[in-house]
Amino acid sequence: MPRRAPPPEPTPASGSTTKGERSKAKLVAATAELLQRQGYHATGLAQIVEESGAPRGSLYFYFPGGKEELACAALAEAGSAWRERLETLVNDTPDLLAALDAVCNTLGDALEASGFELGCPVATVALEASSASEPVRATCASHFAQWERSIAARLRGSGVPRATAAELAVTVLATVEGALLLAKVERSRRPLRHAAKVLRWALWGAMASTAPPP
Amino acid sequence: MPRRAPPPEPTPASGSTTKGERSKAKLVAATAELLQRQGYHATGLAQIVEESGAPRGSLYFYFPGGKEELACAALAEAGSAWRERLETLVNDTPDLLAALDAVCNTLGDALEASGFELGCPVATVALEASSASEPVRATCASHFAQWERSIAARLRGSGVPRATAAELAVTVLATVEGALLLAKVERSRRPLRHAAKVLRWALWGAMASTAPPP
Repeated sequence: MPRRAPPPEPTPASGSTTKGERSKAKLVAATAELLQRQGYHATGLAQIVEESGAPRGSLYFYFPGGKEELACAALAEAGSAWRERLETLVNDTPDLLAALDAVCNTLGDALEASGFELGCPVATVALEASSASEPVRATCASHFAQWERSIAARLRGSGVPRATAAELAVTVLATVEGALLLAKVERSRRPLRHAAKVLRWALWGAMASTAPPP
Repeated sequence: MPRRAPPPEPTPASGSTTKGERSKAKLVAATAELLQRQGYHATGLAQIVEESGAPRGSLYFYFPGGKEELACAALAEAGSAWRERLETLVNDTPDLLAALDAVCNTLGDALEASGFELGCPVATVALEASSASEPVRATCASHFAQWERSIAARLRGSGVPRATAAELAVTVLATVEGALLLAKVERSRRPLRHAAKVLRWALWGAMASTAPPP
């Protein structure tokens, strides 16, 4: 796809944000929500332009790689925003088990508020597009790897040995992702509620012991 | 879509399977694999007909509801085949923790053998199409509910109290689904391996106690 002529000269705006930067941000935000709601393959550039309200020219100017490049930017942005939000919550909750409950509650609130349409901002695309696009797969993998590192660090800070913290972190992430999936399909918070409760056993066991039962 | 003329008169075939029934089965099998690999929105009827080798006319004869109806049949069939396979494995493994390992190993084998392209046969469609199609959502929800009942029954058989077994079943299902998702994206069995190990704590805790830690 050839790089098109740039959009109209940006005009000074409130703060340091130019019109072009606002268009770019609108494209990224609209793409992120469409990917979260319906995934990669159902999301077309025409729909992104329409929902974003950004001029079509800005799409190819800022994202000459088209949908794949825009999707990677949107996944990275949405994933990062959610990580920041949940990490703040976890850091503000000194007790580890209470922090887990707080995260599951926040995810359940967001899912329910969207009529059970908006689950994990990355998981849908991760499952359907990982085989089709290596940049998309790598972006999703990087998101999950950052989550794992963040969870592992918090577990180590709560006294869990390093090796156990690594194994536990990927499992906590898997359980929460799976519970979000089941909750979306069931249109109910029940899977998240039960998963949070059961994960307490795993965290409790990890804090009390350095090896799982034989 | 109007119901078209039926495909050519079925001719007697080996056993009791008619040519028409074989075409129907081929359509369902091809759809199931495409849904598992790339999801609902990326899968078109032309690709299904091509990959199945079935005559196009048989598609609208057996599935007048088109892609949605065919997808529901394929999800139900693939989900049921996997449940039967894994339930046999679990029933053949008396120790509960060993059964969990066996399931995670089998899932890891299948995922790796497909070059990390074929994970859960239902999860991808569940995430991307639950908002778009109520029949598809209900088919996915029914699949997961049957898994939950199956896991809960095995847990109760191992002495886990009924209420705990129900909470644990949805969590085990969530963890395995999430680990399959992470393994597909990471192109590695690591998440499945760690999840199986950590779930032992949760199962151990559930068997030893009737309530999770406070």
